[in-house]
Amino acid sequence: MERLPGFRDFYPEPLPQPDMWSADARQYIFGRWRTTAQKYGFREYDGPPLEPLELFTLKSGSEIVGQLYNFQDKGERDISLRPEMTPTLARMVAAHERNYKKPIKWFATPQLFRYERQQKGRLREHFQFNADIIGEKDPAADAELIALLVDTLRSFGLTEKDFIIRISSRNAWHEFFQRRQSDPAREYEFYQIIDKLEGQDPQDNEQKLTGLGISISEVMAMIQGGEPTAELKNVLDNLAARGLQNYVKVDHGVVRGLAYYTGIVFEAFDRKGEFRAIAGGGRYDNLVKLLSAGKVELPALGFGMGDVVLLELLKARSLLPKFDGKIDVFCLIENETLRPASLKLIQDLRSADLAVDYAFVLTKSDKQFKRAQELKSSFTVRLEQNGDGSLVAKVKNLSTREEKSLSPADAVRDLSAVRRP
Amino acid sequence: MERLPGFRDFYPEPLPQPDMWSADARQYIFGRWRTTAQKYGFREYDGPPLEPLELFTLKSGSEIVGQLYNFQDKGERDISLRPEMTPTLARMVAAHERNYKKPIKWFATPQLFRYERQQKGRLREHFQFNADIIGEKDPAADAELIALLVDTLRSFGLTEKDFIIRISSRNAWHEFFQRRQSDPAREYEFYQIIDKLEGQDPQDNEQKLTGLGISISEVMAMIQGGEPTAELKNVLDNLAARGLQNYVKVDHGVVRGLAYYTGIVFEAFDRKGEFRAIAGGGRYDNLVKLLSAGKVELPALGFGMGDVVLLELLKARSLLPKFDGKIDVFCLIENETLRPASLKLIQDLRSADLAVDYAFVLTKSDKQFKRAQELKSSFTVRLEQNGDGSLVAKVKNLSTREEKSLSPADAVRDLSAVRRP
Repeated sequence: MERLPGFRDFYPEPLPQPDMWSADARQYIFGRWRTTAQKYGFREYDGPPLEPLELFTLKSGSEIVGQLYNFQDKGERDISLRPEMTPTLARMVAAHERNYKKPIKWFATPQLFRYERQQKGRLREHFQFNADIIGEKDPAADAELIALLVDTLRSFGLTEKDFIIRISSRNAWHEFFQRRQSDPAREYEFYQIIDKLEGQDPQDNEQKLTGLGISISEVMAMIQGGEPTAELKNVLDNLAARGLQNYVKVDHGVVRGLAYYTGIVFEAFDRKGEFRAIAGGGRYDNLVKLLSAGKVELPALGFGMGDVVLLELLKARSLLPKFDGKIDVFCLIENETLRPASLKLIQDLRSADLAVDYAFVLTKSDKQFKRAQELKSSFTVRLEQNGDGSLVAKVKNLSTREEKSLSPADAVRDLSAVRRP
Repeated sequence: MERLPGFRDFYPEPLPQPDMWSADARQYIFGRWRTTAQKYGFREYDGPPLEPLELFTLKSGSEIVGQLYNFQDKGERDISLRPEMTPTLARMVAAHERNYKKPIKWFATPQLFRYERQQKGRLREHFQFNADIIGEKDPAADAELIALLVDTLRSFGLTEKDFIIRISSRNAWHEFFQRRQSDPAREYEFYQIIDKLEGQDPQDNEQKLTGLGISISEVMAMIQGGEPTAELKNVLDNLAARGLQNYVKVDHGVVRGLAYYTGIVFEAFDRKGEFRAIAGGGRYDNLVKLLSAGKVELPALGFGMGDVVLLELLKARSLLPKFDGKIDVFCLIENETLRPASLKLIQDLRSADLAVDYAFVLTKSDKQFKRAQELKSSFTVRLEQNGDGSLVAKVKNLSTREEKSLSPADAVRDLSAVRRP
């Protein structure tokens, strides 16, 4: 029986094959996402992985359905696995926003799904760190969010040599568009062209832009030399005050393809340009209103960072720690009469918050010792019986090879003092 | 827009309404599950939330489909949201078992789904702690698994006064059945009757048992006075050696309804009998072979513990900690000229691993201070400018009300020394 195409199994390390996905690396990434968000005062939330299909089409139009993992449930509801978190967030905030002080700073680490034509190696799910600020229109919030993005990437050991955040503003492009084209209905079409400029045939681009009454040279001049708007300057100054100026630059080539962005937009890239965008986001001041059917009106902004590109980048830069599933103590049980006392010792060590393992059935001492080494145990402990029937615990430090003889109670005290953080 | 029936939104605390689900409580539960499993040397894994439908029908028969959240995807595959983790585990182990030393000790905390007729308050998803041992037939593994279950519940502050683990053995019932009924095809039917004995009409039970040539009085005698099998004695002795004898008792009324259990089975209940089972599991020595189409044969055992009953129990026993989203420092910014230096200070505090918040836009001092209190901040810090232009940081401890004047660098040093663990 095979798993479904485009889905991942996560195995414990060490991985038998290098192309497998590591549950330990995933947990490491989740941990850094969570602790960095908490340092910034963001609180965790989550919603269901399944939502009514309408929640997503309301936001993105019915074209989105072609990319969704949607279906009809047994109650004949049209539903979908979530392709993104923002609609769920907007739904949750709209339902209870009166009870939360603004600005709301929330984060989540959902698994997201899409169903596109299957391509080799293309995944149909990934995990995404989502951080959003709701209820603050000042660009100070945009700067805070971008600073969180910088510090999240730095928490993995990435530096200003590894990544850059390109910042732009929909407002700058909005002004540019308005001066050249009077039909506001075509504005989204324009953003889509700009967003995909790099990957497309230059003649195609020129033709499409001409159709909007805009020349490619005007667009290129804007991308290469467009002046930062007042809000962009404000954000850059704020980030510079934090000492983060080397992590960001204005780049009007970033517009983000999605229809709902309304202000500052940004994307994080690796400096070498080897990978797709590491993260992206921006301001979406009208979306909460749209998704709450007009009931709640709150300015908002957020970003998403997927686990797949991040993991590729960390691997490429050799920044992933070793996940060896190291335990603290391996208890050697050398004969069955010592098993009850050894089980008691194991229980006491675990109660002292040590990670402990042992062999379920009696095997040769050297086989048990080998297992202790495979598990990267810091210590072994084994009980011996004295002539008077009392027990002595032999505690061995596997790095120094030093061995001590202690009472079982002292062994627990001794070992719990040196446990890993 | 409403969420789907039977699904949960998880909000940050403090919760506006007591019947809402707390993202903080969920994370607390995940944390205890994870750290206890790791103390026992269990390693984390995970699989996809979607699997081929066949993976579940192969194990549980096609009757299971009525309870599954299953559908056809756009590629016309019959698939299902996972109703349990064991088939995924067996699939994953079968694919790579040669590369992992036995016994394999793995855990996961998956979200599981079922689609039953909707009843008021009945959920269609929950999270479940799964711990399994694969590749060990000795009852020492059963004892280890039950000890992990005990310590997981104890990690939440529950004691022997709060819960009991009832242990039985399929082997005891197997012998009982064989002595009375020669058709092995009817054995599963028999287990289902025993499993549901308590909730059913006694006359119905009697009639069903008579149909199998078994009297209700024989069954009751077995439940109330059946002798522990040798394997059960072995497990009880092992747990007693660990000092856990008061957490377990033999109870042949526990058989577990599922077809695939082959040995020791057990369920954890609250002592007062107010809730459904907190956890349940047992040995399933033939399942890996079945689910790997005969390719891999490994004895195995495991348990599952859901988050919903556990949370109800912890609430009822007042064992849930307060999740107040406490921050370490709130930075008061009293005029705009101090904002750049304040942002630098905030950045330095966060770089020292402190959780820091502040107001994005200038508001009255007392309003900012009130916000610091609402966020349960341990400290406030605010910058002031001396006559010579140098900055002083006023650090206030909000519990003692004591205030210190320090240089900004010393404030960071001072505060990082007292940060929360």
